[in-house]
Amino acid sequence: MAKIIRFKKQDLIDYTIKFMEKLGVPAGDAEVVGDILIEADLRGVSSHGLIRLSSYYGNRLKAGYMNPETITKVIKETGTTLSFDGGNGLGQVNGYRAMEACIEKAKTSNIAVATVNHSNHYGIAGYYAMMALPHDMIGISMTNSQPLQAPTFGRTAVLGTNPIAVAAPSDKEYPYVLDMATSVVAIGKIKVYEKKDEKIPMGWGLDDNGTVTEDPKKVQSGGPGALLPLGSTEELRSYKGYGLALLVDILCGALSGASTLTDVGFPHEPRESDVGHFFMAIKIDAFRPIIDFKSQIDRMIRLLKDSPKAAGQETIYIAGEKEYIAAEENRKNGVPLLDKIVEELTINGASIGAAFDARPIG
Amino acid sequence: MAKIIRFKKQDLIDYTIKFMEKLGVPAGDAEVVGDILIEADLRGVSSHGLIRLSSYYGNRLKAGYMNPETITKVIKETGTTLSFDGGNGLGQVNGYRAMEACIEKAKTSNIAVATVNHSNHYGIAGYYAMMALPHDMIGISMTNSQPLQAPTFGRTAVLGTNPIAVAAPSDKEYPYVLDMATSVVAIGKIKVYEKKDEKIPMGWGLDDNGTVTEDPKKVQSGGPGALLPLGSTEELRSYKGYGLALLVDILCGALSGASTLTDVGFPHEPRESDVGHFFMAIKIDAFRPIIDFKSQIDRMIRLLKDSPKAAGQETIYIAGEKEYIAAEENRKNGVPLLDKIVEELTINGASIGAAFDARPIG
Repeated sequence: MAKIIRFKKQDLIDYTIKFMEKLGVPAGDAEVVGDILIEADLRGVSSHGLIRLSSYYGNRLKAGYMNPETITKVIKETGTTLSFDGGNGLGQVNGYRAMEACIEKAKTSNIAVATVNHSNHYGIAGYYAMMALPHDMIGISMTNSQPLQAPTFGRTAVLGTNPIAVAAPSDKEYPYVLDMATSVVAIGKIKVYEKKDEKIPMGWGLDDNGTVTEDPKKVQSGGPGALLPLGSTEELRSYKGYGLALLVDILCGALSGASTLTDVGFPHEPRESDVGHFFMAIKIDAFRPIIDFKSQIDRMIRLLKDSPKAAGQETIYIAGEKEYIAAEENRKNGVPLLDKIVEELTINGASIGAAFDARPIG
Repeated sequence: MAKIIRFKKQDLIDYTIKFMEKLGVPAGDAEVVGDILIEADLRGVSSHGLIRLSSYYGNRLKAGYMNPETITKVIKETGTTLSFDGGNGLGQVNGYRAMEACIEKAKTSNIAVATVNHSNHYGIAGYYAMMALPHDMIGISMTNSQPLQAPTFGRTAVLGTNPIAVAAPSDKEYPYVLDMATSVVAIGKIKVYEKKDEKIPMGWGLDDNGTVTEDPKKVQSGGPGALLPLGSTEELRSYKGYGLALLVDILCGALSGASTLTDVGFPHEPRESDVGHFFMAIKIDAFRPIIDFKSQIDRMIRLLKDSPKAAGQETIYIAGEKEYIAAEENRKNGVPLLDKIVEELTINGASIGAAFDARPIG
């Protein structure tokens, strides 16, 4: 049975810095990466948490597939827009800087958009959208990714899981934070079923004929099968999920000048991934007083939560609510890591001379 | 059997003007409404076409539920934003003016957003997004609507079908035009099955217990059942469709100051609907040269269309492609209207002294 071990957030950030410094990443940048990864673990999105530190970022850095020093260079700037070249640096560092600059710009221009090309996997999309919240702005964050998703009527992975995240501030309720892959599920979910030797639900993935399959082994990362777009089948309108996935590739790739579709690299490939990101900030009081907006969001949340439940259901959730509840709990009790992750961190840390020295809580 | 009768577009626009002038709508405004309705018929989206002229807009105008003279008033304006009060006028006129102003602003500011409150049903969302295309901009258009959709784990209609439309220009291929309700299907689709006395597919709607049903009668406009969000069930991730529906309500309602969720009025209700819209324009060459963007869009479209097809499928479509093909065909052969629609237009036209005098082609 998998066991959960808990740590202080700061201890894990300190370790991330130590680990990444060994690979040439400046401490300040490593701290940004650590915060974004550990926030994922806190919010219950462990698939995008510290599990990726060595297996993903560490391996790419060690192999020299991406640059440890992230130079986020402005290619073009106007009063409302910023185009960055991410210089094949860390996705989190590029993402953080781009969203920060986007918010800064929106303070005077009310609306701002920033794109990044030549970047890498940036972790949870929601983190960057949420950066807008303390500024009373609506935040939007998207990224394209390596091909894992088939278009409607296709049978191979041509599109990334291309997530969309949007955050909007509330008054007393939790903020609205939507953070969703445009495929039904992410590839990690398929792997969990494969490991457990269980069938996946019909509607998640395709085999290499383009037929919906229950066999997780047939829906593999890098083909021959593929993930299905949100909506699953034509009958349930998968053209919408597919259309949204393509939209993300247009905004993150075609608009930024990054790679798109099958040109986006897999993390294990010995080349630049050339991932693209898209960020937007909307200053709410350019439209109406912030308190009016926030009160209306609260009322909407209450109305949704108080509306009648389906038979057998007790709670209607708002986008982001489950993650806020998990994060509150975990901030009190410590960042939860699976024992297997801790083991992996220990082994991989030792291999580069960065012993995993964070002490479990309790 | 339903028969299709074809007309010249200009004849139908002339008739729309004649019909609406009888109800007090200025000719210029009626022309805008006519163009938007007839473009829907041309693009094969007849559910949002002239079928609505009398049954929807005509009836609300006759009953005095909305104002024939649309005064789209600026409430607040900045260098990048516009908040309009739609004055309970025609949704199409408000939408057209707001998107036009948004595009005009984006010519100098590169990014612009316009919101409208106190508006009404505005027809196909895609029309406004597509207005950005000739300006080499990406266009976005959303509207909230009367409650027809249940949240995940709910069982009553709390959210509108809240469509999202995005258009992006291409070079030689058809532009990308996504125009999608955030529910699996729109309510009109359910009514078609009801009329044919056929079962609806599992995953489209709920009965009044919140159980997925095949009975179209149980999924009624105004309850007690409801449409399901894109994704259909929790297993297939309906929280994403539900989250997008809520996003549309946030941007169109909470940001604009319009009504949201169950406060949005049904067309038959003797009151203001207080629908809200959200528009955005992004000038592409603020980020990179337009020709680079357009060539990449073309390459993406070719790559998707040339990728391997699922067993039994011949074509992978791009968002908007089917509608462009239908529109090309119909522009040659004439606007197709079902004989029943023509009959309805004739009866309703006569009742207000605006005889339907458009002559069928051929």
